[in-house]
Amino acid sequence: MKVINLGCQLTYSVMAPANFLFQISVPQNNYQSVWNEGFQTTPEYELQVCDTGLLGNRTHRVLVQPGEFTIGYQAVVELYQVSSLDTDLIEVAHADLPADVLTYLNPSRYCESDKLMKFAWDTFGYLQPGYSRVQAIADWVHNHLSYTPGSTTSTSSACDVLLQCSGVCRDYAHLCITLCRALGIPARYVTGYAVDLQPPDFHGFHEVYLSDRWYMFDATKLAPVSGFARIGAGRDAADVSFATIIGAADSMYHYVWATEGVSDNTDNRQPMPNDALSSA
Amino acid sequence: MKVINLGCQLTYSVMAPANFLFQISVPQNNYQSVWNEGFQTTPEYELQVCDTGLLGNRTHRVLVQPGEFTIGYQAVVELYQVSSLDTDLIEVAHADLPADVLTYLNPSRYCESDKLMKFAWDTFGYLQPGYSRVQAIADWVHNHLSYTPGSTTSTSSACDVLLQCSGVCRDYAHLCITLCRALGIPARYVTGYAVDLQPPDFHGFHEVYLSDRWYMFDATKLAPVSGFARIGAGRDAADVSFATIIGAADSMYHYVWATEGVSDNTDNRQPMPNDALSSA
Amino acid sequence: MKVINLGCQLTYSVMAPANFLFQISVPQNNYQSVWNEGFQTTPEYELQVCDTGLLGNRTHRVLVQPGEFTIGYQAVVELYQVSSLDTDLIEVAHADLPADVLTYLNPSRYCESDKLMKFAWDTFGYLQPGYSRVQAIADWVHNHLSYTPGSTTSTSSACDVLLQCSGVCRDYAHLCITLCRALGIPARYVTGYAVDLQPPDFHGFHEVYLSDRWYMFDATKLAPVSGFARIGAGRDAADVSFATIIGAADSMYHYVWATEGVSDNTDNRQPMPNDALSSA
Amino acid sequence: MKVINLGCQLTYSVMAPANFLFQISVPQNNYQSVWNEGFQTTPEYELQVCDTGLLGNRTHRVLVQPGEFTIGYQAVVELYQVSSLDTDLIEVAHADLPADVLTYLNPSRYCESDKLMKFAWDTFGYLQPGYSRVQAIADWVHNHLSYTPGSTTSTSSACDVLLQCSGVCRDYAHLCITLCRALGIPARYVTGYAVDLQPPDFHGFHEVYLSDRWYMFDATKLAPVSGFARIGAGRDAADVSFATIIGAADSMYHYVWATEGVSDNTDNRQPMPNDALSSA
Repeated sequence: MKVINLGCQLTYSVMAPANFLFQISVPQNNYQSVWNEGFQTTPEYELQVCDTGLLGNRTHRVLVQPGEFTIGYQAVVELYQVSSLDTDLIEVAHADLPADVLTYLNPSRYCESDKLMKFAWDTFGYLQPGYSRVQAIADWVHNHLSYTPGSTTSTSSACDVLLQCSGVCRDYAHLCITLCRALGIPARYVTGYAVDLQPPDFHGFHEVYLSDRWYMFDATKLAPVSGFARIGAGRDAADVSFATIIGAADSMYHYVWATEGVSDNTDNRQPMPNDALSSA
Repeated sequence: MKVINLGCQLTYSVMAPANFLFQISVPQNNYQSVWNEGFQTTPEYELQVCDTGLLGNRTHRVLVQPGEFTIGYQAVVELYQVSSLDTDLIEVAHADLPADVLTYLNPSRYCESDKLMKFAWDTFGYLQPGYSRVQAIADWVHNHLSYTPGSTTSTSSACDVLLQCSGVCRDYAHLCITLCRALGIPARYVTGYAVDLQPPDFHGFHEVYLSDRWYMFDATKLAPVSGFARIGAGRDAADVSFATIIGAADSMYHYVWATEGVSDNTDNRQPMPNDALSSA
Repeated sequence: MKVINLGCQLTYSVMAPANFLFQISVPQNNYQSVWNEGFQTTPEYELQVCDTGLLGNRTHRVLVQPGEFTIGYQAVVELYQVSSLDTDLIEVAHADLPADVLTYLNPSRYCESDKLMKFAWDTFGYLQPGYSRVQAIADWVHNHLSYTPGSTTSTSSACDVLLQCSGVCRDYAHLCITLCRALGIPARYVTGYAVDLQPPDFHGFHEVYLSDRWYMFDATKLAPVSGFARIGAGRDAADVSFATIIGAADSMYHYVWATEGVSDNTDNRQPMPNDALSSA
Repeated sequence: MKVINLGCQLTYSVMAPANFLFQISVPQNNYQSVWNEGFQTTPEYELQVCDTGLLGNRTHRVLVQPGEFTIGYQAVVELYQVSSLDTDLIEVAHADLPADVLTYLNPSRYCESDKLMKFAWDTFGYLQPGYSRVQAIADWVHNHLSYTPGSTTSTSSACDVLLQCSGVCRDYAHLCITLCRALGIPARYVTGYAVDLQPPDFHGFHEVYLSDRWYMFDATKLAPVSGFARIGAGRDAADVSFATIIGAADSMYHYVWATEGVSDNTDNRQPMPNDALSSA
């Protein structure tokens, strides 16, 4: 079990009344427990908690008036250890997949798995199915791409990235997801906080459904997966933007942190009220 | 209130054990009641009912052995009349949209709304928001495209279709959905049965969230919207394929029907058991 | 007849021996005479004049050693007036087009006219053929796009630009060329110097073959066509890059000028030697 | 030296007066001599010979009236043997490339070399430059693609083909050309007749500039390169379509042949008049 102190502080310059949607909080679920969670805004606003459906993502919505606006979030998260018998994990036959997992086989905006069927089968079809094949896909993507901030835009898709051989964390994840889906393996995009990520920022990675649940992978290898705390999951980055702004506002500052270890106030930590939590 | 007799019969030649996913049945919900529903397969198989999540689509899954395989479905559906005060319907401010509707603002595989933001605002931004603007989008798409079977493939997206100026029903719907989302109006893809569609087939159209619920539109104008019975809804056609086949099987025959009027056995019609129904 | 003083000065930081190809000089041809042309480089290098084929573009090639490198070019150009009976210009029937013009009907890298056939015919097919239709295309592109530096990259094509509704001069030209070719009207990309362009820079525009020769158009409307001196022509921007660098070098400064009027040294102006000239 | 008998017969149904451009004849040049060449049309028309510029392609143009129209072409071609010291062929430094070859470094419609720079360098950059690297590219493309008639359309580009892993001869050539250009190696598309091609048809392949001239390669490996007679060369398939039709006409029949060996009438063969020939 690991204990992570994490949080972020985001500051905006708001020109006209703007509606913000934030996906920056960590939900409590089978993979992680959340303690001492807190939000602060300056000026003070009440945040509306939206549960955007099946995925368990907790979205916070707030209508902000012109001026400078800052939102802060912090929490202590315990990550439950996953048994390391990874090599026994299997790809599940389509007929046996849970119904709510089927949607993660469909192509999505940035993951055009329908276009890469033959590419995926030609490249990975001969490998032994299971955990090792999914890891081989992540390794292949790691070697195929160069991590290059600025080389992609918000409209770049897995096919674009495969051709240009460069990208950032979301692009690595999109390409892995696309190749998995093309092989019939459910895969989804996950955002989160990552211990030891340099420079510190929100992180994007991917989860693959194996045996009986979702497992995290990170083709960037920028930080250890064992230090990832999930924020939300979606089909691809279109679903889990950290901040969606409807209106006129510019980002000014942006701090994110995640460190391992017991925080000063862990001794008297208090569980979050249940009604503030979602489960994935 | 309209009563529709509808159904389909699909025959496949199965070469090796194949897993089928069908989205051909009509769910009971606020828009439609379903009576005397029935499935038959030859040879006889038990169909597994999957509820694929939030959308309420009912998917039927069956693992089929080699040989000829036929699935039939029929139902009597009552469509509830929608008041015709369409011109009063409003576009809902982002801050007021229900949380479960937000996902239909995101771009999806065949609806790259992130690429058409300026196009949509330049073309429709000056129009009065509300029902009339959404109808104007459907009219524009109707005029911009030529209905041309064979002009698109299963990988064609809204951007492709906008450039090539031709497509079939799914392409019309994808382009409308994309333009709506680019304007901040939630829109989704719907499949269904359509009375008076020539030639008879499954149909694809789109729904837009206005005022307080989803309203149907059909840019193809091939059949009256008042005769549409919904099968399922999704982000785009990737989510609501009529038949998904994992394995080796070819489609042989394919009949679809939908006719208005009281069927012979309406008098002694029986409601479907509740546990077989989904709600949208 | 107009007299234009024009030129440029380009400075690079060269890290390792690099081969430069410049297309910055103005060729003498039926549209323009060139006087008092001169090149200077610091340090001093001999420039190799390459005539890159059919188009008459004059390319200067030079292999540069590490260090700072500056190339300067200046000339006095007389532009021959074109009679203004533009409305009489006709689109030439395919059977009557000169053979060397046919290549400008083919799609090219940034002008995918094969993808926009129906779009072009639907939008402009009903217009009276001739000069006015070609002008209508330029006007349509002018209105459809917003001039937005930074909105496109070196890989953006006419289809990209049509969808995103923004671009810079090369994008305006590419879209016009594409729509013309799709209608069967030969069109090509031209680079040049433009009097009164703000901010001063090289310019990209397009030429269309009407009646019996090429006519210039500029959908950006940033400067009067009557003050354009041609550098080179090609299928699209891929053919007429101002500077192509093979090796490690960065651009440091970049000045371009073009002003109308008699220069101080016009009285004793000397014609360029013929062997230094190309004809288009 | 090889002697090839070759030709074709193409029949069209012409609905309205249509202008045809044919690129089906074999030019005389340094690589091949042409004897006993002949054209026939039914009904009889005079063919206009167009020399479409730098490339030496001979295009025949004819305006055809409604009705059935057949064009036939046949020739005897001697192919000059190329010395087989292929492994000595070198890639030419950019500074030393002939000026008329530079254009074949530019990206073109179906060969987006500007998009595959990093892909090409990552995959082939570590290989020894020269003939063996160009052959390695052709071998890689041969293995990466499956030859699948119907898998691509007339708008498919090298990037499309790289992603979908299938195509026909023109797609193999486009991908090879694109990868070569991305590495700075001039490459172009060539059409021709091929001995032993099954089924017999026109063929598309590619040429690469090495040492001091163009060398043929064929990534499809469907027929021996030593039996290829060139029709024309261009940047990609956009430049060398076998038949371009402006007007309303449908292809009805289409025969192509190319066989090695002395034809019956070789003994009294007559050289073609010079004015009917082009040189590449």
